[in-house]
Amino acid sequence: MQVGDPFPAEREIAEKFAVARETVRQALRELLLAGRVERRGRTTVVARPKIQQPLAMGSYTEAAKEQGLSAGRVLVGWTDLEADDVLADQLGIAVGDPILQLERVLITDGVRVGLETTKLPAARYPGLRESFDYEASLYAEIRSRGIRFERTVDTIETTLPDSRESALLTVDIRTPMFLLNRLSYDQRGVAIEQRRSLYRGDRMTFTAVMHAP
Amino acid sequence: MQVGDPFPAEREIAEKFAVARETVRQALRELLLAGRVERRGRTTVVARPKIQQPLAMGSYTEAAKEQGLSAGRVLVGWTDLEADDVLADQLGIAVGDPILQLERVLITDGVRVGLETTKLPAARYPGLRESFDYEASLYAEIRSRGIRFERTVDTIETTLPDSRESALLTVDIRTPMFLLNRLSYDQRGVAIEQRRSLYRGDRMTFTAVMHAP
Repeated sequence: MQVGDPFPAEREIAEKFAVARETVRQALRELLLAGRVERRGRTTVVARPKIQQPLAMGSYTEAAKEQGLSAGRVLVGWTDLEADDVLADQLGIAVGDPILQLERVLITDGVRVGLETTKLPAARYPGLRESFDYEASLYAEIRSRGIRFERTVDTIETTLPDSRESALLTVDIRTPMFLLNRLSYDQRGVAIEQRRSLYRGDRMTFTAVMHAP
Repeated sequence: MQVGDPFPAEREIAEKFAVARETVRQALRELLLAGRVERRGRTTVVARPKIQQPLAMGSYTEAAKEQGLSAGRVLVGWTDLEADDVLADQLGIAVGDPILQLERVLITDGVRVGLETTKLPAARYPGLRESFDYEASLYAEIRSRGIRFERTVDTIETTLPDSRESALLTVDIRTPMFLLNRLSYDQRGVAIEQRRSLYRGDRMTFTAVMHAP
């Protein structure tokens, strides 16, 4: 079968292989959560291969474009927060200092693949909320302010989406997801951002190439 | 609450917060799949923090020991296979060439955290099955044969365990898992191994530190 080919109806598969319909339904559910098939309305079709993204310091857009994929972003919202003790420690600011939070859905090749929540020390990025085009790369914007991304520290976990996340990413709540938490530092060792990225595990694969020291 | 503290009974929680028992059950299930609580017999207790493992070329054991954690392995089995076209291409051997497969459960701090399946071109590792102590590091064994790990290429996916995997790792089949597929190459660019590692997402976190070029 080719990408986009429709699956036969549950009843047809059950008859052909002489198994219970519940067995077919369970198998299709597993294929769906694994990203091997996808739903188009009431039809189940063979899914496209997962998107491969290198684990890298660069921006999401740059990585997608290098693979010849279209990349877009949808604004979920800007939020004003105050740093709690964890965030203050991570970003090297005082508890209660203003935080500017930007939340966006990442779209690759027409698919909502990720939800990115970036927390920035507001005082270091004056006018950002007013001037920044949310469809553009935040990394490029920060670089244009003379700040260099020197070091990133990522933790990578798996998780399940909550109901809000599953709605924003149009994904089943039983789908295993990647959760990346990143702290980025500039050339002086000052924290630039705290970023939480939730990626659909049924649509994304990360790649990492390592060399002996 | 501290690590190891028991949770009150479902009924008790339901009464205290005036919610339905099914709601409490669902919330506890989510905490369980996320690795925040664990079962000890019939009791639910606060789980230990996840194990952090650097995404690195080194062996699993070495990474665990650097964090002061005990690391063990249980043999699932050795299997003789023949290379199919994909594996032959990956390992640079002919279709039908003998493959030696080693499958082990990885144990950290007493917890079955991973299932590792290594496929080796049998002709390059004579006597391995007879002489290798499966509780030891396979990387160390391969290095002792004068082979250097020069480059690794990993893909990282999320998945759900199948019933065999969930039994071997004593994990609920709804638990999001990490699936790492690795190809390792030696100093001459010859493939050393194809390795599939399935890690419990409720017990493991990967970390990656990157620097600007």
